[in-house]
Amino acid sequence: MRYRAWVEYDGSAYFGFQRQRNDQPTIQGELEAALTRLSGLPIGVLGAGRTDTGVHALGQVIAFDLVWRHGEQALLRAMNANLPPDIAIQQVEVAAADFHPRYDAKRRAYAYIIFNSPIRTALHRQRVWQVRYPLQLEPMNEAAAYLVGEHDFATFGQPPVGENSVRHVYQAQWRPQGKELIFTIEANAFLYRMVRSLVGTLVEVGQGKRSVAQFQAALHAASRQLAGTTAPAHGLYLLSVTY
Amino acid sequence: MRYRAWVEYDGSAYFGFQRQRNDQPTIQGELEAALTRLSGLPIGVLGAGRTDTGVHALGQVIAFDLVWRHGEQALLRAMNANLPPDIAIQQVEVAAADFHPRYDAKRRAYAYIIFNSPIRTALHRQRVWQVRYPLQLEPMNEAAAYLVGEHDFATFGQPPVGENSVRHVYQAQWRPQGKELIFTIEANAFLYRMVRSLVGTLVEVGQGKRSVAQFQAALHAASRQLAGTTAPAHGLYLLSVTY
Repeated sequence: MRYRAWVEYDGSAYFGFQRQRNDQPTIQGELEAALTRLSGLPIGVLGAGRTDTGVHALGQVIAFDLVWRHGEQALLRAMNANLPPDIAIQQVEVAAADFHPRYDAKRRAYAYIIFNSPIRTALHRQRVWQVRYPLQLEPMNEAAAYLVGEHDFATFGQPPVGENSVRHVYQAQWRPQGKELIFTIEANAFLYRMVRSLVGTLVEVGQGKRSVAQFQAALHAASRQLAGTTAPAHGLYLLSVTY
Repeated sequence: MRYRAWVEYDGSAYFGFQRQRNDQPTIQGELEAALTRLSGLPIGVLGAGRTDTGVHALGQVIAFDLVWRHGEQALLRAMNANLPPDIAIQQVEVAAADFHPRYDAKRRAYAYIIFNSPIRTALHRQRVWQVRYPLQLEPMNEAAAYLVGEHDFATFGQPPVGENSVRHVYQAQWRPQGKELIFTIEANAFLYRMVRSLVGTLVEVGQGKRSVAQFQAALHAASRQLAGTTAPAHGLYLLSVTY
C-alpha cells in the first residue's frame, strides 16, 4: 500500500532533505530509517521538495510503500515514536498506488522570515534571518509583484539538468508581523535556491541599494549575475504542496 | 558605573541562570565571561530571577559594575558580540549605583506555553510543552482567577530559606493562540517552581481530573502534597520585571 504523509521538521541539524552518499544525517535518511524499523524491510521514501541544509518544513509531502495492518492513526503514532524530536509527521493517509509527491505536485508554497532589528534574537535565531538595517516594505512588495506570472527565472536560480528555467509564480508578497517580515511565494515549481536568491535580492530593494526598476530589469535579463546575495537557509520554510 | 540590561535567552543549553560551583554552563556564567572579556577585570552579574535549567527569558534584568567609555549603544553591541547566539542583550542603560535587579523588583511576569495537540511539533519542541489530550480552557481560567490576590502559595512551591510563602498575584490567565494555550501570570514574587507547579495543576483542571473547587481547596490548604504535576521547564518564559 502506498501512503502519503505530511512532515514538519526543523532543518537545523540536517544536511537537507535528500539522502547523501556519505552518512551525514538527512530528513529522508531519518524517515527511511524509522519506516525500516517499523517494517523490518528496507523502505524508500519519496519527497515533494529537496530542501537544502538548514531549511525547515511545515508541510513537506512524502510517499512510501508499506505493509501495515493497524490503520493510519496508528501508523502516524508509530512513525512519530520512531523519529527524532526535530522531525514530526502531521498526517498520514493511504494514497493512489502511483502517487508521486514530486511529479504529481501542481504548486509549492514557501515562506521566508526576516527578523528586521539591529538587536539579535536568542529565541528565534535558528528560525529567522536577522537583517540589521531597516527595510522598506513597500518597494519590496512592488518588486515582488513583478514575479507573479510566467517568467524565465534564470536570474534567481538554476533548473535541474535538462529543464528550462521558466516557472509560473502565482503569488509573492511580504507582510510585517512585529519585528518580522514574512515573505510567502507560491509557484508551480522552483529553481535551485530560487526563494533564497529572491529574498536576498528583494532585501537589497528594501535597503534602497537597488531600485524596483533595477529589480524588474534583473528579472527580465534572465542572468544569474544580476541576482543579489542569497539569503541564508535557516529563514526558509517549505509551507505546503498542492496536488 | 552600574549598568542595567535586559536579556533574552534560550535556556535549552544551560543549567539555569545562576552560576554553578562546577563548570556547567549557566546564563550568569556566560554574561560574566563576556563582561570580563570586555573589561579585562573579573565582573560579577546580578540577576532579577534565578530561572531553572531549560527555562527561557524574554526580559531577564541584570546589573553589573563596569568602567566603559564608549556609551550604552556600543556596550550593547560589544556584549552581544561576546555572547553565544542563544543569549542576546536587548537594551543597556546606566542605572543608579545601588540598583539591585532582584531586591528592587516590584513585580515579575512569566508566560508558559502549552502546545495542545495529539501530534507533536518539530519546530517548536524546545519552546512549548506538548499536552496530547484536549484541555478545556474555561475551567482553567476559572481556577486561575482564584490565584489573584494575596495568598499563601505553599501548595505550589517552596520559599527561599527564611521567607514565608505568601505572595501577591496581580493577574493570571490563559488565552488560546492556534494550537497553543498561553498562560501569563504576574506577581510581586514567586516561590521556587511555582509557575510550573501551577501550570501542571491547572492542566489537571483542564483535563477534568480535578474540579475548579478542588483546585481552590488545594490552594487554600497551603500544602505541597495537594499540587499536581510540575510542568516541564522548556515551556516557561521570564517575560518582564517591573521596578
